[in-house]
Amino acid sequence: MTAAGRTARKPRIALAIGDPAGIGPELAARMAADPEVNEAVALTVIGDRRVLDRGARETGIALDLDHADGPRFRDLGHLDPDTIRLGVAAEAGGRFAMANFRACLEAAQAGEADAVCFTPFNKAAMKLGDASFDDEISFALRVLGLPGPASEFNVLDGLWNSRVTSHVPLSKVASLITEASVGRAIRLTAASMRAAGLDEPRIAVAALNPHAGDGGNFGHEDDEVIRPAVEAAQRDGIAAEGPFPSDTVFLRATKGAFDAVLTMYHDQGQIAMKLLGFERGVTLLGGFPFPICTPAHGSAYDIAGKGVAHPGATRNALLLAGRIAASRLDGTAARPEPALA
Amino acid sequence: MTAAGRTARKPRIALAIGDPAGIGPELAARMAADPEVNEAVALTVIGDRRVLDRGARETGIALDLDHADGPRFRDLGHLDPDTIRLGVAAEAGGRFAMANFRACLEAAQAGEADAVCFTPFNKAAMKLGDASFDDEISFALRVLGLPGPASEFNVLDGLWNSRVTSHVPLSKVASLITEASVGRAIRLTAASMRAAGLDEPRIAVAALNPHAGDGGNFGHEDDEVIRPAVEAAQRDGIAAEGPFPSDTVFLRATKGAFDAVLTMYHDQGQIAMKLLGFERGVTLLGGFPFPICTPAHGSAYDIAGKGVAHPGATRNALLLAGRIAASRLDGTAARPEPALA
Repeated sequence: MTAAGRTARKPRIALAIGDPAGIGPELAARMAADPEVNEAVALTVIGDRRVLDRGARETGIALDLDHADGPRFRDLGHLDPDTIRLGVAAEAGGRFAMANFRACLEAAQAGEADAVCFTPFNKAAMKLGDASFDDEISFALRVLGLPGPASEFNVLDGLWNSRVTSHVPLSKVASLITEASVGRAIRLTAASMRAAGLDEPRIAVAALNPHAGDGGNFGHEDDEVIRPAVEAAQRDGIAAEGPFPSDTVFLRATKGAFDAVLTMYHDQGQIAMKLLGFERGVTLLGGFPFPICTPAHGSAYDIAGKGVAHPGATRNALLLAGRIAASRLDGTAARPEPALA
Repeated sequence: MTAAGRTARKPRIALAIGDPAGIGPELAARMAADPEVNEAVALTVIGDRRVLDRGARETGIALDLDHADGPRFRDLGHLDPDTIRLGVAAEAGGRFAMANFRACLEAAQAGEADAVCFTPFNKAAMKLGDASFDDEISFALRVLGLPGPASEFNVLDGLWNSRVTSHVPLSKVASLITEASVGRAIRLTAASMRAAGLDEPRIAVAALNPHAGDGGNFGHEDDEVIRPAVEAAQRDGIAAEGPFPSDTVFLRATKGAFDAVLTMYHDQGQIAMKLLGFERGVTLLGGFPFPICTPAHGSAYDIAGKGVAHPGATRNALLLAGRIAASRLDGTAARPEPALA
């Protein structure tokens, strides 16, 4: 770590190796050797060195770690890759990925890193490893001892998508759409985007009902719940608009009318983002004291071990985390920087 | 109308001029002069001749109607276009469009036409004209004295989308998803596609909940309601599959895995179809004794009177209605053919 001033030093990112049966190891190895990433951020990969080395072999990369100013590695020495079958979800793989993620989160909490990233987890393996949490967000909140709220953002080609509700049954969605929950989500979106360096993000708020309720014919929430929440946010200086019918709002956003679309439920945003090519995109967990980013795609068991995984989304995740962390560093006083690895 | 045999004669289509303040008149005029349309179908436009002539003037078309074997016109003489302001929703415009649609429906019911089409209606104008029905489907059911069920299909580049629920609040959707309603929709989709000449349509059924309920973590309907309905349809020889997570099913369909996607609610399908370019597509009303088709786009008040409306979707609507009607004609005995116009 250089001793340069706070605006000059690179943001420090702790990168957890994800599921070892998928493309996580090779993507971590690629990032450690990626010139653009290492130019922008000070990277520390956390996992097991044998797993990382296997990822490097798969991609034909010669790793050069732990030199001054270069990428570093923190070896937890907790998984022999020969015990892992590629392409198969396993308890050991789930525990490995979560242990790496936990170590990254704790490093950031201790001030040893400015941001956390991870290569793809496998959901089935995570459940085998620990079934006591729903997703990465609830895991991170628990590790950090935070109450929330936290939220997932999807970022693709400059367009952000966030949502008020996520992993809940569709039958429960309408009852969870309240002026308070929509208002919180608008504010969290605005704050997260400002933290990423967008000064006045233009946020389109999607309607809950078809045709935005058609004046009350197809549901009252758009007029009676969502619109007041949007107007309250506007009064607080947030450039939010809506509610807009959700079947056209993404078309407008892709034409440049908005920087973000806030959706009311999981599939409302995911249908659009995946059609727009979100496999190339980045998932950002917002509402934490530091950015947490991961590629939008999954662990890709079908191509594990082949060295053919595209590194673009992971690179974008690290660069976005780096931009947000750098923006925060610019806004804080200089402080001592503990060594991470 | 020619006296040729039943497989040789062209399907007869009654085309209603839609909202007179929008692009409906010019599109009707274009269709009456369209060589591809007039080669495929025997067209009768229904409306007011003065309105059609204005549409023809807007587009620079010289209409040549009511010759043997050419397109015909039925003049209801009920609207002076000089009383209509372009781009403004008006009661007179709504009543005009609905009267034309009613005349087309009654002509088909009387056996004088094999299919019905209409150029775009304007919803606000229709409500001003008659607020007693929800949409074109309920209007058509009422005119024809039918109990339903009827359903809307969206067709784009060979991909069909239909839905179990449509213009209802999102809060009501889950309670309307039953084994019976999903089963009915699958059967109506299969029947409508077979009627359009697709022998064994491959129908993907979308899940209701995020990640198709994730094994019950995010809702039970996918496993307990939708899957049994799909399996029952399969036992009846329908090539239905699912439920599939709705945020990836359209990606798979566009790659050729399916001919149709059955969605559970309005925006689930419309978000995808509109991103895929559904403005070019066709809306087909299914569950009627004859096909009813219209372009997917609206009345486009912003370009009304300029003669620049793209005729592609309207042409596709007439050709699809013609194909379905021809397929039905092939399957029925010869019968006397009353003159329409």
